[in-house]
Amino acid sequence: MPAIEETYDVCVVGAGHAGCEAALACARLGLETIIFTVSVDSIAMMPCNPNIGGSSKGHLVREIDALGGEMGKNIDKTFIQSKMLNKSKGPAVHSLRAQADKAAYSMEMRKTLQNTDHLTIRQAEVSEILTDDENHICGVKTVSGAKYNCKAAVLCTGTYLRARCLTGEMITHTGPNGLQPATHLTDSLVAHGIEMYRFKTGTPARVDKRSLDFSKMQEQFGDEKVVPFSFTTNPDDVQIDQVSCWLTYTNPKTHEIIRNNLDRSPIYAGIIEGTGPRYCPSIEDKVVKFADKERHQIFIEPEGLNTNEMYVGGMSSSLPEDVQHEMYRTLPGLEHVKIVRNAYAIEYDCINPNQLYASLEFKKIPGLFSGGQFNGSSGYEEAACQGLIAGINASMKILGKKPCILDRSEAYIGVLIDDLVTKETHEPYRMMTSRAEYRLLLRQDNADLRLTKKGYEIGLISKERYDWVCKKEQLIDEEIKRVDQVKIGASKEVQSLLESYGSIPLNTGTTLTELIRRPELDYDKLAPIDKDRPELPQEVTEQVNINIKYDGYIKRQIKQVEHFKKLEKKKLPENFDYHEISGLRIEATQKLNLYQPLNIGQASRISGVTPADVSVILVYLEQLKYSNPDLFYQLNSSED
Amino acid sequence: MPAIEETYDVCVVGAGHAGCEAALACARLGLETIIFTVSVDSIAMMPCNPNIGGSSKGHLVREIDALGGEMGKNIDKTFIQSKMLNKSKGPAVHSLRAQADKAAYSMEMRKTLQNTDHLTIRQAEVSEILTDDENHICGVKTVSGAKYNCKAAVLCTGTYLRARCLTGEMITHTGPNGLQPATHLTDSLVAHGIEMYRFKTGTPARVDKRSLDFSKMQEQFGDEKVVPFSFTTNPDDVQIDQVSCWLTYTNPKTHEIIRNNLDRSPIYAGIIEGTGPRYCPSIEDKVVKFADKERHQIFIEPEGLNTNEMYVGGMSSSLPEDVQHEMYRTLPGLEHVKIVRNAYAIEYDCINPNQLYASLEFKKIPGLFSGGQFNGSSGYEEAACQGLIAGINASMKILGKKPCILDRSEAYIGVLIDDLVTKETHEPYRMMTSRAEYRLLLRQDNADLRLTKKGYEIGLISKERYDWVCKKEQLIDEEIKRVDQVKIGASKEVQSLLESYGSIPLNTGTTLTELIRRPELDYDKLAPIDKDRPELPQEVTEQVNINIKYDGYIKRQIKQVEHFKKLEKKKLPENFDYHEISGLRIEATQKLNLYQPLNIGQASRISGVTPADVSVILVYLEQLKYSNPDLFYQLNSSED
Repeated sequence: MPAIEETYDVCVVGAGHAGCEAALACARLGLETIIFTVSVDSIAMMPCNPNIGGSSKGHLVREIDALGGEMGKNIDKTFIQSKMLNKSKGPAVHSLRAQADKAAYSMEMRKTLQNTDHLTIRQAEVSEILTDDENHICGVKTVSGAKYNCKAAVLCTGTYLRARCLTGEMITHTGPNGLQPATHLTDSLVAHGIEMYRFKTGTPARVDKRSLDFSKMQEQFGDEKVVPFSFTTNPDDVQIDQVSCWLTYTNPKTHEIIRNNLDRSPIYAGIIEGTGPRYCPSIEDKVVKFADKERHQIFIEPEGLNTNEMYVGGMSSSLPEDVQHEMYRTLPGLEHVKIVRNAYAIEYDCINPNQLYASLEFKKIPGLFSGGQFNGSSGYEEAACQGLIAGINASMKILGKKPCILDRSEAYIGVLIDDLVTKETHEPYRMMTSRAEYRLLLRQDNADLRLTKKGYEIGLISKERYDWVCKKEQLIDEEIKRVDQVKIGASKEVQSLLESYGSIPLNTGTTLTELIRRPELDYDKLAPIDKDRPELPQEVTEQVNINIKYDGYIKRQIKQVEHFKKLEKKKLPENFDYHEISGLRIEATQKLNLYQPLNIGQASRISGVTPADVSVILVYLEQLKYSNPDLFYQLNSSED
Repeated sequence: MPAIEETYDVCVVGAGHAGCEAALACARLGLETIIFTVSVDSIAMMPCNPNIGGSSKGHLVREIDALGGEMGKNIDKTFIQSKMLNKSKGPAVHSLRAQADKAAYSMEMRKTLQNTDHLTIRQAEVSEILTDDENHICGVKTVSGAKYNCKAAVLCTGTYLRARCLTGEMITHTGPNGLQPATHLTDSLVAHGIEMYRFKTGTPARVDKRSLDFSKMQEQFGDEKVVPFSFTTNPDDVQIDQVSCWLTYTNPKTHEIIRNNLDRSPIYAGIIEGTGPRYCPSIEDKVVKFADKERHQIFIEPEGLNTNEMYVGGMSSSLPEDVQHEMYRTLPGLEHVKIVRNAYAIEYDCINPNQLYASLEFKKIPGLFSGGQFNGSSGYEEAACQGLIAGINASMKILGKKPCILDRSEAYIGVLIDDLVTKETHEPYRMMTSRAEYRLLLRQDNADLRLTKKGYEIGLISKERYDWVCKKEQLIDEEIKRVDQVKIGASKEVQSLLESYGSIPLNTGTTLTELIRRPELDYDKLAPIDKDRPELPQEVTEQVNINIKYDGYIKRQIKQVEHFKKLEKKKLPENFDYHEISGLRIEATQKLNLYQPLNIGQASRISGVTPADVSVILVYLEQLKYSNPDLFYQLNSSED
């Protein structure tokens, strides 16, 4: 049977949040790219919550932006409410979160894809990956038999692979929101020796705004002054009329209904095989696991400006329709709620991510990369950043360049991918600030300072943007130095300023730096007594303030990073058989052989590898100097 | 198993163009209405061509508007190009046609539904109709087992019932554009004794604008002055920046590719069972049926402002993907075309519409109505007008009022429904001006004059709008009378005006009416010599002009209508056994028993009922005066 055969540099499978970033990265790097989706109308669809960002996820979006990704720009163009979370806490946990107009978000991203050079969009279901004699990826095939040759491919199938949706006893074999699933690709992956997992996730009901009584809920406003996600967005452009969200709570009656119907839940009845996300549980999970909790927060969030549908955040469920009907109506303000779409759980195939290098390339199939929920993560932002890295590294491979691997001290993205590929994950992985050990350094406010240069080296950041970040760094350094030279005497003006902020008066002269460090003061507040202060952009003075205030903590964390970097620099041989190292415990040998860590740092984070095992490896590496000088030299060469 | 049970006045199944009109009509008439859709995101979706209106379909939209429907208003808010077709021909065939922004059209209609009082939207698949002991509809059931009680229901399932899509050898069991089909309802209908048909239709590929060479095509502009569809739209609001469409042609090379691959077409290979629309054939049908034609027109039309996808009008196909690839590339300007979505054929279940009364109520199941492609029609406009009538009549039934049945002399809608329910249709029915015998009266320009009063009586038209139409009628009548009184002498001014339009000079005095009748002149052109002309709205003067110019034809057609009305007034008994009438031919008896026509006019249009049969029935009806005076009186009562 004749069939289409076309040739591209990169094939991207799936056009969700991961696939879009992957395809854009490849195309923007000049590679001929084709992206496959089962529905062009569902590009960048948000099948669950209507927002981007939030705790730690906001960091990811900023990092994506600093590397030249699209998510931040897209939400800046389509948000309807924005809030910097945790502002009462330290800057490390400040996180930006914006409500999206779902339809606009999806349409805007589709528009960007459609107008990117070197990028082709194709509505088709990919059913097979094709490899050459050396098991290198060489193409993909669609259900129609069409063949698309490529040098690299990126799989971003999200929750579509052999998907099925469950609402109580009602099961449909569809992707999210009733869309067509992708039914064939799993078989091809398994035939190529890929180990598959079965995960599940869920979403709450969507309800009709007009059926709600908002007087019984607490109104949640956006920030008065909105901060954009993207470092390229003009802050003036995001000062829009915002919509409100609403807060209500479950109560003992809600919990009772759920408990009484647990036998009808597909999870508790054993119908669901997939593992769900621990940190994004269904309401029935919450009621069971936190049995003593009398109430749970429920956020009612608009799905867009042009729809009356509202998202019931915190109340995802796979309970039967009639139970949903009953339980939603117990919430204050939802007594007469009209459900437009039922809550449901969705099961899907994904991979065990330990089959990937930190570059997100399959160890077994060179040239094949993957990102997003297919890699066992959860969340739009987690998906997008992996898609971006997978797309970048597919491109780097084709261009004969070094892969972009961010380490744990550089980015949340580094933490996320390192966790995915080295830790034994048996549930959908969600980003959290607590997973980042250097989180005082990995702030959302300095993502540009941390990563723009990388983005520039990769080729996704313009010279102009790169130059500005260099200039910004310089301005910050200069201002920190200047501030440290500013002597403040105990003048009347100074004392009265201090008093106005409840700060202890000066006994003797000090520096401006010392005053900024006082918890009740900051750089901006001290402006009146800093006569020679130059005019600097807010993004510069914000960094000056944070760096001075948290100087001690930051320095300590930089020290820790230096130690970490040393271990991270100690490279391990590729495709190495750890049986060669005597003295390793059996479990360690097995795990090391399985994961094939790139360096000592990564090896030390594999669960089942103890500090003692690490010492044994370090000794072995030293001895290589004598036993295998070639390898020793190779591992210790300065080329990084 | 417990399940939801709710009660509404009306259940509408399906939210395409028919379902939306049906649900809006019911809810606006104050009835508690629920509309079911398999996907809220696909409400009022346009799965095929990106336009509303066109020859005869433009008439339907105007009629829908005059009766209080939504389609005209919705396209006025979301069109991107508009054109009055056939302007070089007589006013009977003038037809408005507008390109739609598909996404905007759908979103706007969803917004209207969401903000209509008494209307509930529910994403769920209806799987059963429920009837009471008297076989009257009493509810519907969804796949989850939820029960929705009702007094009337309207089925508008479009092309979703047991749908399957075909592109060559590739077959998927999905609705249009990969959406979830509705798989269960057919069984329930069959169990209720409903006769089902299997129809098919198709759609062409969508292609990437950036891959086209427009320099090889002819640009098609919109009208300089746009006329709105809705009589309520302010004409100033539709003077927008329009986009262009493009014209190209097939050629012998295209046809050769198609001919060479006919054995791989699912139609010619016998895989497709359904019957396709004769007047909207696939390109392979055209090539086979018009073998001597050297080329066919192909219109390249944008699908919206926010997408690069273009519709390839005239080239629907179910040929395999690789053949599509090859054949589209033979078109001038499409040499390097990138197909985004394949063309496909879709097969679906629908009913034999002879099971319906002209009210669109099922003869067998009182309270059950239906509209749209489910009734065996094709086209968005055909669907919408049936949905509106079905919704109105479901409401009228509940409210204890007379059904709204438009006859063939009143509206294209009347022609369409009369054709559907009385003619033996074995293929998707498409509206055409040639189907309307009184088309000089049924113009698109006078739809408001014809139908606004009906809409007002029904309750879907405001008093204000009704009053304006009455006033408009009066203004037209007065102006026609005034113009007939205006004497025109052979003055210098008059002669030079006539000369300027190439019109023969006057020998003697005449009336303005006589001059308007001259083909080269019209009401507007004669303004300079009509000194006392009052200032009148354009919509009034247009009617004055048409009525004067076509007076003779119009009068003749009115006479024909009077004759037709007489037959239409001769009522036939309900649930009558035509075996009682001796002298009827066997075929006529069978058909009459099957169709149960409401009157002699309808009976005469049933294929298989001859003029001789009609005479026999007329004689029988006269004799009733003696044999069954009660029935005679009932049939001849003046209440109409």
